[in-house]
Parts: sequence; structure tokens; C-alpha cells
Amino acid sequence: MRISEFQEVMRRTYLERDAGRGEDATFRWMVEEIGELARALRTGDRANLAHEFSDVLAWLTSLANLAGVDLDAAAARYADGCPKCGAVPCRCPG
Amino acid sequence: MRISEFQEVMRRTYLERDAGRGEDATFRWMVEEIGELARALRTGDRANLAHEFSDVLAWLTSLANLAGVDLDAAAARYADGCPKCGAVPCRCPG
Repeated sequence: MRISEFQEVMRRTYLERDAGRGEDATFRWMVEEIGELARALRTGDRANLAHEFSDVLAWLTSLANLAGVDLDAAAARYADGCPKCGAVPCRCPG
Repeated sequence: MRISEFQEVMRRTYLERDAGRGEDATFRWMVEEIGELARALRTGDRANLAHEFSDVLAWLTSLANLAGVDLDAAAARYADGCPKCGAVPCRCPG
């Protein structure tokens, strides 16, 4: 799926609800999902990992919809290598 | 860009470095970026927002690479509407 398609799917499915909830509460939901991802990584619950990654991606995308950010356009800064050093693989110091 | 392309770009650019750092340190980096996103949302630094969203997406994708999760396949559970209620728009209670 394209990033832009995923963002559109999220808009159709959740924007009305997200807008009613607001940016702060949507951010908090995303952080809850990040906690669930942390737990799945820690406990080795590999079967659940893909599920938790998709939930974090979904909430991040919902938040981008609320903030009016085009995630596909934003992601493009990584398309040609590290945005800091310009190299593939990244050669940033440290 | 496709989600799978973005994940492959991230793999080429950062996987070696991410693997050396490890899953826990990569998770911590992602959380640092989530903090920067929180700040950009709070302060109304809209010019910086797309940048911060792309950084969180990048670190989430790096973490998926380390964990061996295919983000595009994971995202597919949202493709046909809310995975919980099945509706577009979502009609989950609450």
C-alpha cells in the first residue's frame, strides 16, 4: 500500500472521531499503543508484534491527519538516503 | 512512496547502524522523536511538524526492520475499515 493510500484510509475510517477527540487525546492514544509495542518487544510476544506496529502506525497517521501533515511528502526526505549526511548507508558520526 | 519501499530505504540506510545499537536503544531514539513531535504540536511550530512526523515514522520503521516485521503487511489490517468494528467510518462504541 502507498503511504498516501494508508493516510486516506485512516482519514475515511477515523478522522471524524479523531477530530471530535482532539489532538491531545489522539496523541495520548498513540502513546498508549507505543506502550503496547514496548511490551510486545520486551515479552517476546512475536505473534502480536505486527499487530502492535500497525496500531502505532495507524495512530501516528491519524495524528498527521489532524495536524494536516501529508505523511508521504514528509517521508520523501528519507528517499535519497540519510537526510543529515546524504549517504546510503548513513555515515553520520556517533 | 509505498510503505514497503520506505521500509526498504530505511533498511539500506540504517539497518547496520540500528542492529549495532540494538532494539532497546532504537526504541529510546524513537521515543525521543515522539517527544520532539509532541513539542512541535504544543508550540504550534507548524513549519517543523512534517519533519517531526517523518522522523517518528522513520524510527518506527527502523524498529520494525530490527524486529523483522513487514509494516506494509501489518498495515493491511486497516485496509478495509476499522479492524474492530469493520465499518468505514468506524462505529466502535465509546
